[in-house]
Amino acid sequence: MSFQNPVFIPGPTNMPEALRKACDMPTIDHRSPLFGQILHPAREGVRKILKSDSAEIFIFPSTGTGGWETALTNTLSAGDKVLAARNGMFSHRWIDMCQRHGLKVEVVETPWGEGLPADRYEEILTADTGHEIKVVLATHNETATGVKSDIAAVRRALDAAGHPALLFVDGVSSIASMDFRFDEWGVDVAVTGSQKGFMLPAGLAIVGFSAKAMQATGTGTLPRTFFDVHDMAKGYANNAYPYTPAVGLLNGLNDACAMLLGEGLDNVFARHHRIAEGVRAAVRAWGLDLCARSPEVYSDTVSAIRTPEGFNATDIVTLAAEKYGVAYGTGLGEVAGKVFRIGHLGSLTDVMALSGIATAEMVMADLGLDIQLGSGVAAAQDVYRSPQPTHSRAAA
Amino acid sequence: MSFQNPVFIPGPTNMPEALRKACDMPTIDHRSPLFGQILHPAREGVRKILKSDSAEIFIFPSTGTGGWETALTNTLSAGDKVLAARNGMFSHRWIDMCQRHGLKVEVVETPWGEGLPADRYEEILTADTGHEIKVVLATHNETATGVKSDIAAVRRALDAAGHPALLFVDGVSSIASMDFRFDEWGVDVAVTGSQKGFMLPAGLAIVGFSAKAMQATGTGTLPRTFFDVHDMAKGYANNAYPYTPAVGLLNGLNDACAMLLGEGLDNVFARHHRIAEGVRAAVRAWGLDLCARSPEVYSDTVSAIRTPEGFNATDIVTLAAEKYGVAYGTGLGEVAGKVFRIGHLGSLTDVMALSGIATAEMVMADLGLDIQLGSGVAAAQDVYRSPQPTHSRAAA
Amino acid sequence: MSFQNPVFIPGPTNMPEALRKACDMPTIDHRSPLFGQILHPAREGVRKILKSDSAEIFIFPSTGTGGWETALTNTLSAGDKVLAARNGMFSHRWIDMCQRHGLKVEVVETPWGEGLPADRYEEILTADTGHEIKVVLATHNETATGVKSDIAAVRRALDAAGHPALLFVDGVSSIASMDFRFDEWGVDVAVTGSQKGFMLPAGLAIVGFSAKAMQATGTGTLPRTFFDVHDMAKGYANNAYPYTPAVGLLNGLNDACAMLLGEGLDNVFARHHRIAEGVRAAVRAWGLDLCARSPEVYSDTVSAIRTPEGFNATDIVTLAAEKYGVAYGTGLGEVAGKVFRIGHLGSLTDVMALSGIATAEMVMADLGLDIQLGSGVAAAQDVYRSPQPTHSRAAA
Amino acid sequence: MSFQNPVFIPGPTNMPEALRKACDMPTIDHRSPLFGQILHPAREGVRKILKSDSAEIFIFPSTGTGGWETALTNTLSAGDKVLAARNGMFSHRWIDMCQRHGLKVEVVETPWGEGLPADRYEEILTADTGHEIKVVLATHNETATGVKSDIAAVRRALDAAGHPALLFVDGVSSIASMDFRFDEWGVDVAVTGSQKGFMLPAGLAIVGFSAKAMQATGTGTLPRTFFDVHDMAKGYANNAYPYTPAVGLLNGLNDACAMLLGEGLDNVFARHHRIAEGVRAAVRAWGLDLCARSPEVYSDTVSAIRTPEGFNATDIVTLAAEKYGVAYGTGLGEVAGKVFRIGHLGSLTDVMALSGIATAEMVMADLGLDIQLGSGVAAAQDVYRSPQPTHSRAAA
Repeated sequence: MSFQNPVFIPGPTNMPEALRKACDMPTIDHRSPLFGQILHPAREGVRKILKSDSAEIFIFPSTGTGGWETALTNTLSAGDKVLAARNGMFSHRWIDMCQRHGLKVEVVETPWGEGLPADRYEEILTADTGHEIKVVLATHNETATGVKSDIAAVRRALDAAGHPALLFVDGVSSIASMDFRFDEWGVDVAVTGSQKGFMLPAGLAIVGFSAKAMQATGTGTLPRTFFDVHDMAKGYANNAYPYTPAVGLLNGLNDACAMLLGEGLDNVFARHHRIAEGVRAAVRAWGLDLCARSPEVYSDTVSAIRTPEGFNATDIVTLAAEKYGVAYGTGLGEVAGKVFRIGHLGSLTDVMALSGIATAEMVMADLGLDIQLGSGVAAAQDVYRSPQPTHSRAAA
Repeated sequence: MSFQNPVFIPGPTNMPEALRKACDMPTIDHRSPLFGQILHPAREGVRKILKSDSAEIFIFPSTGTGGWETALTNTLSAGDKVLAARNGMFSHRWIDMCQRHGLKVEVVETPWGEGLPADRYEEILTADTGHEIKVVLATHNETATGVKSDIAAVRRALDAAGHPALLFVDGVSSIASMDFRFDEWGVDVAVTGSQKGFMLPAGLAIVGFSAKAMQATGTGTLPRTFFDVHDMAKGYANNAYPYTPAVGLLNGLNDACAMLLGEGLDNVFARHHRIAEGVRAAVRAWGLDLCARSPEVYSDTVSAIRTPEGFNATDIVTLAAEKYGVAYGTGLGEVAGKVFRIGHLGSLTDVMALSGIATAEMVMADLGLDIQLGSGVAAAQDVYRSPQPTHSRAAA
Repeated sequence: MSFQNPVFIPGPTNMPEALRKACDMPTIDHRSPLFGQILHPAREGVRKILKSDSAEIFIFPSTGTGGWETALTNTLSAGDKVLAARNGMFSHRWIDMCQRHGLKVEVVETPWGEGLPADRYEEILTADTGHEIKVVLATHNETATGVKSDIAAVRRALDAAGHPALLFVDGVSSIASMDFRFDEWGVDVAVTGSQKGFMLPAGLAIVGFSAKAMQATGTGTLPRTFFDVHDMAKGYANNAYPYTPAVGLLNGLNDACAMLLGEGLDNVFARHHRIAEGVRAAVRAWGLDLCARSPEVYSDTVSAIRTPEGFNATDIVTLAAEKYGVAYGTGLGEVAGKVFRIGHLGSLTDVMALSGIATAEMVMADLGLDIQLGSGVAAAQDVYRSPQPTHSRAAA
Repeated sequence: MSFQNPVFIPGPTNMPEALRKACDMPTIDHRSPLFGQILHPAREGVRKILKSDSAEIFIFPSTGTGGWETALTNTLSAGDKVLAARNGMFSHRWIDMCQRHGLKVEVVETPWGEGLPADRYEEILTADTGHEIKVVLATHNETATGVKSDIAAVRRALDAAGHPALLFVDGVSSIASMDFRFDEWGVDVAVTGSQKGFMLPAGLAIVGFSAKAMQATGTGTLPRTFFDVHDMAKGYANNAYPYTPAVGLLNGLNDACAMLLGEGLDNVFARHHRIAEGVRAAVRAWGLDLCARSPEVYSDTVSAIRTPEGFNATDIVTLAAEKYGVAYGTGLGEVAGKVFRIGHLGSLTDVMALSGIATAEMVMADLGLDIQLGSGVAAAQDVYRSPQPTHSRAAA
């Protein structure tokens, strides 16, 4: 098993040395006061990264998918109506989960590569005078297409429609890497995981609930036990969990938050943006297009790159792994075979990004694409040579 | 944070060095073939430890509680009837989960300290001529009371009644430490976690489904997505997960199975029995009683020790942690304050057990109990000095 | 390879989790400023632990034996005269090293089990009116016999004789575990290693030179390159080494000093004393004697325990390893077969010590010695139950 | 402290994950049989990597410099004559060590950038009819200049002259990365360290002695104790050391040998050659020259790159560290400020090498050198795209 090269999948990300060590913790008694000294600061750190003063933070031994289920099952009842746009594989999956839990989903089909259609949301919400729609789902960053959506615009749509629906945001591949404003955007439930911006192994579903969402937990009747936020809240009040917590991961999360807040969120976001700009410069130099249709939806955490008609983009991922030991993401769903993805989030430096760009060039040339070796690297180097604050360069 | 002393909670257990290192794994692409080389052997290892030829093994990034929910939501529908005995905190919690998922539970109240009443089960099942009972729940080892139940007897009760109900067994604190015979006992769903007999951090729900249980997944209508075994099975067929797996923990699980099977399951069980016998000899030397009422229900993974009337057993746990840095388990539920628990499962040696016994003596003496220092240690030493096969002594 | 039980050899000691992680460091450029940020604080930490304001601290990628060689080769010339007492294996070896480097050693043969004979030193130094003796060697703690010597008394002997010889002290198994006063005792060279009181892996020779010793480096003509303190000093002035440093170990040393100073040296010494008192109480309860002849020379880091005439003490060490997986020290040299040694230094708790005492009891009983099981444990428990400041209990 | 980017210093190298874990070992009793199970296979592995059937392998807790001292002090006496060429900083330092140990060194001054002058050696040896020269020193790979010398030619010179001098080879930066033939070349002492081809932390001096060199240890009278090979051999015969060994590093060495031999030495050497060829292609593309004067002396482990007249090459190293967090080597001694060095040995992949090349381009451009961005990367990509056996690509 070779671990020498960085990974360029859109999560789990490369892990900082210090966080690996924080997770690799000996057994402690998870019912001792020591556990509270890990749990509460971790929750407080997450809250700050969400830019919220008052969100209730719940952390489950699970994944982002479990976070979605937490959001739905704690607040909704079978037959409730939900509004959602499908513009990629992950929004699709969340819709599917809703349907399997007996929710009615009003789906706004949206071209993959575009952001959430806030104006369509506004029309639908305005038309919903009976307020049947209980929740609006919004995927902040579509990992499948490398598309960032404007959550503030979704909030404005709700407000313009004077609609009381809750706003649930999937921030799995955005939170802690791109700006997220829980309070300012009026988010009711935010969902993320440990393995993206937090640079940890997978294994934690991290959710934030607004006061309004907490209120909705009183009426939602979908069955839930493992993901019940009341059980969790009751546990937290006693420095404990309703079952056995993943102590090492929580310790890692605590340290991850400290690391991110120490670097400064603005610096973290600027670092992700700069690295992403380098990747995008390389894509242009290669003469290729992003799946994301316009700059305002470009994701700073993952780029989905369209390959020429007739070419199987998945071959890039396969050959890169086999010949060079480098991992990229394949296209999923509608764009399977049409795009390959370079993840550029979490613990990454300009220097690491250059190796990912250089390897992609070699692979594309190997597969007969008309790519000039070094061209993407040179374009990215131009970006990475620009002045930058020292402290924003790297997580430890 | 001091990690010097072993822990004596009934899980998570002390972790072998090699397993900590196996879990502390750099990021790999969980959609690469490499992942399959971890996943499938881990599942196969679990199957062998369950002593099953054909159980379908599913591993979720969750905990044993998530395993219970997996068992229920994949096979049952709201309103279905379940038979269960309540003889401790963990059987109580599983019953509670059933009720919260809209199942009707026929509860056999059983004194805490006693095993499952197989004869009562037989009467009830025999009376259930309409076969309304869909599932019989059985807690193999009640972690709260240190009581082991006879699952073979429960199977015999089902067979004697000619009843087709499924048999779901909670083996969280027994599997991989005490003998468990999935096929021989006709178990339909077995549930465990990573943090007990497998000696890993918490974070994995591990379940085995019989063919009959898999069939039931076709009719169960309880909503489920995160814990859906069909999604999981579909993922496995592609060396993948329906979401992001906890790769490091799976790698650890794979190595844990190899370690246990390498030691030999009989040796593993004998080792747990011998260590437990030492602890029980100490308890007798102290003049105290176990919560478990008779030797045939003594658990080899945890001993719940009754303290004298009027004494708060939880004080032992508190003082041991504060003064000596040693963790024991408190009493839960009905036996809160009446027992303290010494966990003796997972990665443990005779020598480590002696330090747990010696510390308990000091604490009890400190708290004014009439305990002769060294008495329990001497009794345990007698047990541990008996000849033993070298290879059964220790996990690495 | 099983790593479950603590070790009870007199070094290398058990290692705190945090120090293992500090040593396990990725590669850095040892010629970068970052290295200076590890090196200088580590040297400063050592200086504080030596209780010196001005000692020059040198740290070689070597062991304590290399530290001895550093002391000799930097200050002396072939034919120079040295005064030393032989009261155990380690003083014997240092004498041997002197002789092999062409030094003339006036050896004061001293019974093994006794401390350095300061009065004999005084007589000899007084008689040496020509000041032929250039250096007095003193082993602070004889690891072979568990004997601590009075270095202040040796200093008084030098002063009473008005003798200008340098005072070289082997503090390998005392420094950072027992009180050591470089400045107050007028020590000229102190020698230690990383693997005892500093709780690190072996691999560093740590030495302190007084101004007077530094002056002597100008005249000593013994050949030296690897251990040359001038090369080292020149390197340090440039944040560097004359060759490749052991960066991870230095990082560990830096953290070890911080950990010890954070606990407080007095607390560290009191902790070692208390644990040693427990071991000694056990020895008395067993009816056995220490090799150390009187309480004032009892070592707080290692106890050498005499076994009855006709019994091979080494059998204890062998059986403990084979049957129980526990490591003690054998007798060395003159006391081979006559003593076994329990190391009780470094990262150790009362609780760990009890497991070492309990195991020794089992082994001695197994080998037919008339030892009452539990007797030593009970005696030690009495010691360990006495009130103690929380903060002095454990290194992390 | 950021550890994200690979290092490109010519050692210590990047470390494979598996070797870091092998070194990070809990304390064991270094006098137990377990230690022998680490020590002897490690020595045997080193012997195989030296391509020797019978060399005595000694491993000291020290560094390559200590290995040099071991070679000299065990075989020579003050006043003995040694023949050596000075063609870089490391040959210079070995000469200096000889002189400081009272040896007479006949120095052949050789231009930095050239290999050892075997013909001059032959002339001198032929002229030395009295066989005053006891030892010929040869630096296999001059780390300062990136120059590999022809050791077989030095052997031929000795043979042609019919001269009985011993042949001592510094293989610190060649062994385990480039072909080394102890037996075939008639090497008498080979010296290396743990932190280069063995991909471990610094801390071990590794030496091989021929039978003839072992014989010379009987007559050499230079003082030695720490580095005495007889003490060491005596220890090894008892599975032990004459002092405390660096157990974790030895465990790592054992695993490193297994890893290298598992990959196959020819594959290891081919991998180093291919990566080096990529770096050299980049240097040509930049329009720069190597310090090494001709292809037959190009080192496969380090390239020293000359920068234009008037430019301070050290600025590259400084800016790379400060702005991009990447470490290269500076020029040393005669070529200080004239070259910078890219280390390409040990645990390295093509992909990692590309990031080192890309960063060097950025830095040189930042400093105003006329370097076309992407040019060196493209040249190296051409090399790295060539077909290669999968198994030779990477150490784990």
